[in-house]
Amino acid sequence: MEHALNLAEKAALEDEVPVGAVIIQNEKIIGQGYNQREKSHNAIAHAEIIAIQKASHFLKNWRLIDCLLVVTLEPCLMCLAAIQQARMSGIVYGSLDPKGGAISLGYSIHEDKRTNHRFPAYFTETPRCSQILKEFFAKKRS
Amino acid sequence: MEHALNLAEKAALEDEVPVGAVIIQNEKIIGQGYNQREKSHNAIAHAEIIAIQKASHFLKNWRLIDCLLVVTLEPCLMCLAAIQQARMSGIVYGSLDPKGGAISLGYSIHEDKRTNHRFPAYFTETPRCSQILKEFFAKKRS
Repeated sequence: MEHALNLAEKAALEDEVPVGAVIIQNEKIIGQGYNQREKSHNAIAHAEIIAIQKASHFLKNWRLIDCLLVVTLEPCLMCLAAIQQARMSGIVYGSLDPKGGAISLGYSIHEDKRTNHRFPAYFTETPRCSQILKEFFAKKRS
Repeated sequence: MEHALNLAEKAALEDEVPVGAVIIQNEKIIGQGYNQREKSHNAIAHAEIIAIQKASHFLKNWRLIDCLLVVTLEPCLMCLAAIQQARMSGIVYGSLDPKGGAISLGYSIHEDKRTNHRFPAYFTETPRCSQILKEFFAKKRS
């Protein structure tokens, strides 16, 4: 989570909503990303998506087997579904997103028995993860 | 839909699940894509996502305002959520995906009043859209 937070800080420096994500396989980081929606003019360029693309490129496989995603903010539905598409083994997130988080909104697709891949999602409260977002939006408003 | 079908046929020729998508703004195609998950080693490389990335690049804006997505197959949840993230104005799909389609599975996020963007999704049955998929999987099995 420390590394994901460093990435989120990098996003904030680039005036992007500060969210960072890393993908771990066998205790090694094989993909990472931070939100770049504004800079890249791309609605899809969330931290998790960029990390998935990098890990897939690294493994030369779209299936990210035995990979864990660690992200500073609860994933939106697009990202949670992308994690499922990539067949990842689990996620850990450091802060809640009550308005935009897939799980907070009740879209627990990662537990849906009708889908062909399920995985656990752990919320590990990490105050710095929400704090960095609050600071970013407070600065934006002022 | 004719153009999206041509893209799906291109996918089939490259041994990818044949799905094609185009994005239309002011009666002009501004983005298009076909499924490239295998070739690109990328779980995210669905037809819709590639089309969104191309349209965003074309408009130099992550908001695809007044854009309609036309796709040969009902979008999965990742794609439906990506369409929402991109603030598109609507989608039309030519065949149903009872096992993997977001709407068929009951995840009608495009109508969820708690989200910050909603849009209509029209199913326009186009027999060639499902036929091309059936032919692809029949060939795979034989």
